Amino acid sequence: MVRVGIVGISGYSGETALKLLLNHPQVRITYVSANNTTGKIDDILPSLNGRTNLTCEKYNAQQAIALCDVLILAVPHTIAQQITPGLLKAKKKVIDLSADYRLKDPNVFKKWYGTAHTDTTNLKKAAYGLPELYRSDIKKATLVANPGCYPTSAILSLAPLVAAKTEGIKSIIIDAKSGVSGAGKKAALALMFSEVNENFKAYKVFAHQHTPEITTYLSKLAGKNIELTFITHLIPINRGILETAYVQFAGAVEAKTLHDLYTKFYKKEKFIRLLKLGQQPETKNVLGTNFCDIAISVSENKKLAVITSAIDNLMKGASGQAVQNLNIMCGFDETAGLL
Amino acid sequence: MVRVGIVGISGYSGETALKLLLNHPQVRITYVSANNTTGKIDDILPSLNGRTNLTCEKYNAQQAIALCDVLILAVPHTIAQQITPGLLKAKKKVIDLSADYRLKDPNVFKKWYGTAHTDTTNLKKAAYGLPELYRSDIKKATLVANPGCYPTSAILSLAPLVAAKTEGIKSIIIDAKSGVSGAGKKAALALMFSEVNENFKAYKVFAHQHTPEITTYLSKLAGKNIELTFITHLIPINRGILETAYVQFAGAVEAKTLHDLYTKFYKKEKFIRLLKLGQQPETKNVLGTNFCDIAISVSENKKLAVITSAIDNLMKGASGQAVQNLNIMCGFDETAGLL
Amino acid sequence: MVRVGIVGISGYSGETALKLLLNHPQVRITYVSANNTTGKIDDILPSLNGRTNLTCEKYNAQQAIALCDVLILAVPHTIAQQITPGLLKAKKKVIDLSADYRLKDPNVFKKWYGTAHTDTTNLKKAAYGLPELYRSDIKKATLVANPGCYPTSAILSLAPLVAAKTEGIKSIIIDAKSGVSGAGKKAALALMFSEVNENFKAYKVFAHQHTPEITTYLSKLAGKNIELTFITHLIPINRGILETAYVQFAGAVEAKTLHDLYTKFYKKEKFIRLLKLGQQPETKNVLGTNFCDIAISVSENKKLAVITSAIDNLMKGASGQAVQNLNIMCGFDETAGLL
Amino acid sequence: MVRVGIVGISGYSGETALKLLLNHPQVRITYVSANNTTGKIDDILPSLNGRTNLTCEKYNAQQAIALCDVLILAVPHTIAQQITPGLLKAKKKVIDLSADYRLKDPNVFKKWYGTAHTDTTNLKKAAYGLPELYRSDIKKATLVANPGCYPTSAILSLAPLVAAKTEGIKSIIIDAKSGVSGAGKKAALALMFSEVNENFKAYKVFAHQHTPEITTYLSKLAGKNIELTFITHLIPINRGILETAYVQFAGAVEAKTLHDLYTKFYKKEKFIRLLKLGQQPETKNVLGTNFCDIAISVSENKKLAVITSAIDNLMKGASGQAVQNLNIMCGFDETAGLL
Repeated sequence: MVRVGIVGISGYSGETALKLLLNHPQVRITYVSANNTTGKIDDILPSLNGRTNLTCEKYNAQQAIALCDVLILAVPHTIAQQITPGLLKAKKKVIDLSADYRLKDPNVFKKWYGTAHTDTTNLKKAAYGLPELYRSDIKKATLVANPGCYPTSAILSLAPLVAAKTEGIKSIIIDAKSGVSGAGKKAALALMFSEVNENFKAYKVFAHQHTPEITTYLSKLAGKNIELTFITHLIPINRGILETAYVQFAGAVEAKTLHDLYTKFYKKEKFIRLLKLGQQPETKNVLGTNFCDIAISVSENKKLAVITSAIDNLMKGASGQAVQNLNIMCGFDETAGLL
Repeated sequence: MVRVGIVGISGYSGETALKLLLNHPQVRITYVSANNTTGKIDDILPSLNGRTNLTCEKYNAQQAIALCDVLILAVPHTIAQQITPGLLKAKKKVIDLSADYRLKDPNVFKKWYGTAHTDTTNLKKAAYGLPELYRSDIKKATLVANPGCYPTSAILSLAPLVAAKTEGIKSIIIDAKSGVSGAGKKAALALMFSEVNENFKAYKVFAHQHTPEITTYLSKLAGKNIELTFITHLIPINRGILETAYVQFAGAVEAKTLHDLYTKFYKKEKFIRLLKLGQQPETKNVLGTNFCDIAISVSENKKLAVITSAIDNLMKGASGQAVQNLNIMCGFDETAGLL
Repeated sequence: MVRVGIVGISGYSGETALKLLLNHPQVRITYVSANNTTGKIDDILPSLNGRTNLTCEKYNAQQAIALCDVLILAVPHTIAQQITPGLLKAKKKVIDLSADYRLKDPNVFKKWYGTAHTDTTNLKKAAYGLPELYRSDIKKATLVANPGCYPTSAILSLAPLVAAKTEGIKSIIIDAKSGVSGAGKKAALALMFSEVNENFKAYKVFAHQHTPEITTYLSKLAGKNIELTFITHLIPINRGILETAYVQFAGAVEAKTLHDLYTKFYKKEKFIRLLKLGQQPETKNVLGTNFCDIAISVSENKKLAVITSAIDNLMKGASGQAVQNLNIMCGFDETAGLL
Repeated sequence: MVRVGIVGISGYSGETALKLLLNHPQVRITYVSANNTTGKIDDILPSLNGRTNLTCEKYNAQQAIALCDVLILAVPHTIAQQITPGLLKAKKKVIDLSADYRLKDPNVFKKWYGTAHTDTTNLKKAAYGLPELYRSDIKKATLVANPGCYPTSAILSLAPLVAAKTEGIKSIIIDAKSGVSGAGKKAALALMFSEVNENFKAYKVFAHQHTPEITTYLSKLAGKNIELTFITHLIPINRGILETAYVQFAGAVEAKTLHDLYTKFYKKEKFIRLLKLGQQPETKNVLGTNFCDIAISVSENKKLAVITSAIDNLMKGASGQAVQNLNIMCGFDETAGLL
């Protein structure tokens, strides 16, 4: 049994990680912490009342190190940078759900997150925790940067196309829509029920911090700079992301050809479900699962493909993927605790 | 044209009052204020963009007095007590949507609102703004205490029964359910979309501050002390209250007899819709209207009546009723601006 | 491994049973059927795409008998009566999620379900599948009538009180609220999104078919006839039931006394979570779980108790409870596949 | 007072038209019909209980002609074609909310609606009822084809750009999202609450029947053939459309230049609200109004503009626009009954 600690269980992804790991056959949760809520899990997370005897405390590095082999960090960005160096020094494995170790270039981090990176040494070593693309890196890593929710769906939906060095891609536009839990568990007027319910809007237009994460990893795959447009919208649902990617081609493409390409690319992947031509993903079909559902459609003139993809933002978009990474890092079956 | 000012337009009831009065044929809105948001209405209330040239300022008593004949206060309780005395002194009419002038007994106010009342003089003079019961008082009043949302539905649904001094009422239980806008426009974790959506719960059990308002006015009607149980629940919708009142009788009652009683009691009321036997109110049918829909059902053994009632908490439960009161105070047609 | 078949997987409870049993360590699903949808599970239940190779066929008794040890019937009422006799004859165990075997008196069945019962022989033998009350019966049973969703919450929330033969209960009123999946998966105008969303209403007032089920089993527990009022409402959420039970007493009761009574009654129960005094259940806390959360509150005058209870109507209110019953019938750990 | 009849009040747009016209100062509703529901409005449209004495009957052409000057048709497509010729012959004015008279080319109609057009004579004469573009046609028309909901938002958001014959537009992609009432009031499994709520998906990918309507009228404006991609999604809300249009340019564009272009184009339009740079439309801000809110954003490299637009699909997207057209046809103030 691997001893796992979760730092930051008062947020949605921390709570989801805890729920998942309580059912993981090879994991024992030995430590949980949060900085604004402490006490018995029974009391602070009523949905888990009766499921565990764990007590949540304010984060204490020494204790975390003493009690755990692996730490899952579900803390706000900038906090992970402060915690991680000590944990790595103590030879612990770390899976960070924040944005802190995703962007390799500290300048890009600073531009989009508004603050200088304080742990550039480990930033270099971190593996990007998208198993479908970086499984072997993750296997060897001691620090895994768990991808953002939007980038997970975006990159998975475009990776086969980009990796194939497909000629003639003229433009990529991703119209992304997310449920509200993606914004985290915090009191903010714009996230109140009466403001979000029965409403739909675009937000952070041309300014969403996940943009560079998407372009960085698609560019790496392509072996050249990929430019794309990424616009986000808020859906009045709790959980779920659906992204509609528009790829324009110089020449004609066949739906079947693309479908074959994706089939091959994801042949061995347990958490990618490529839908049959004609079907469409729906967020409810991935709710509570670690699946990413992907569908391909091609326009009548064959010059544009629409790739739709759906994930549960707290599962494949956060904690489910963290458990998948944990499984890889620890040599477990990749689906352990996830099906 | 009567000159009306609205104090507190940044909340839901202030905004709703503004929307209603923009369409009122005999009203000119001459003043709007809020303490945490100022600027052109175009900018601060995007749903009213293009509808008015009004500018919202921080509350200034002198200006309010100079510009208005009637003031509608849509401010938090305790604030209304501070503002009202000055306005009344300046011979202005005041309609207060807060709880400040509803409970005649300052001790009861203190018990439920946690703070001593600071304007007990005007408290005595205030008319309770439920037109169906206190129309003549409202007509003569300079200060009207607009009823709470829950009490409006509760009192209207039980008034005919209680006023008839019906013998043999053994108990009254009101199981009340409200949409989220009833909690006001403020950032609070418990009111966040992800916490309220796909959820249902009771709250403030035996502790809702609207309880004494309901018992006070039903007792007045009955001419004796009425005790009842009042429990509130949160519905994941923006607007709407549905209350299910259970009235137990010592002897047998006939549905038709009760229906006739209610029909007679509300015969001339424009905003009460007594449904036919067998029909049930739904919050969507009163959405955006000033109606209170009421239905009566009687159990097989005839010893229990279920009275269901529905209102829009921001309309008949707040700003719609405020406009109805304004119409009465100003001698306008009672439905002006409301149909 | 026990071989289990699910009859009726196109409805919500059939699908939920399938999802649960795919993760059950001691169960192999060997047969699934539905009458209006057939084909690979991958195609007909997209949320389970990739999870199983099962193929759904039209119901065929011979095959069901040949392939299964236990059959879970998730079919409409009246259909279960037709299927069950053959299965029992073939020595199969049956767990019926429909209403067919819940009411012992065929006349009561006829009154509330509008059709004569056609299998009164087995009706007599069926165990009522509420494990917290009938565990030993279920253990020995070959036919288990899985309780209705509303009755599960209602009976569990009142059982300790009623079983204690508590003196002086003057009346019981249950104000029940349910999410929409309780109505089943069928196209009906009243269940359309645009009709249900942003709406709240009471329905089937004094006419809900679950009423006699609740009174039957509470009366059995009490050893005398229990009368109560049961009124149902529709919440605009997918899953979840919250019931608010009002119990009036002749004398005074103490919250702590009641709480102790419940604590003792449910001491060994894994799926009952009695909340601390002052806490309230919320449907989201039981979502996707087999828990029933119960809270007790007592009025200031101590003559009325409010017992609130919450379940997930598709879990403890249907398929979760069916799995719990399966576990008991097969001698498995009662929580297998459910935590 | 103009005498107006509404044919098809049992659907959402018919009901909305009725609600609007009950408050219209220059209109008397003299006739209402529906084919599957008849009776007093009080009984069949509970939200309008007490608002009118109208009785709804099965459609009868003779009566419609005898009682009305103008007919609003809120019937399914293909039905309008059958009714209209008789009404026009009798010198009545007709505003058709169905798709029947929108597409000038009967072959295009047949391709997308699956049935041959049976009234090609009047098809030629019909004015396209988008006042911002065709006001003078509408003024003279006896038959107005009220635009589709998606096309209203799409065309209004792109018209200034296209009409300006802007050079260098390389591609247009419209990612459209709509609330559920757009699908009409009918029982269908895919539109049930439990299927739509907490879900998001694309539908009719490359196959939405509104596509040719958008291209037809944008092409007319441009004076050349406009090709574009139009993909639709379902939002779990009752009312509201938000469209995100991506316009790629060969050269660089400035946000301010585009904003000025739109400002000028819509200078006199009462129902177009061009938002300031940096603001975004939200469906809730247009809910219940006839406004179309439009915002412009330009990418950092200035080669792509994102034009977002929001309407209430039952107002500017259907019945509100029908009333606007009625006002124009009858010489009333264009905003009568709409503010």
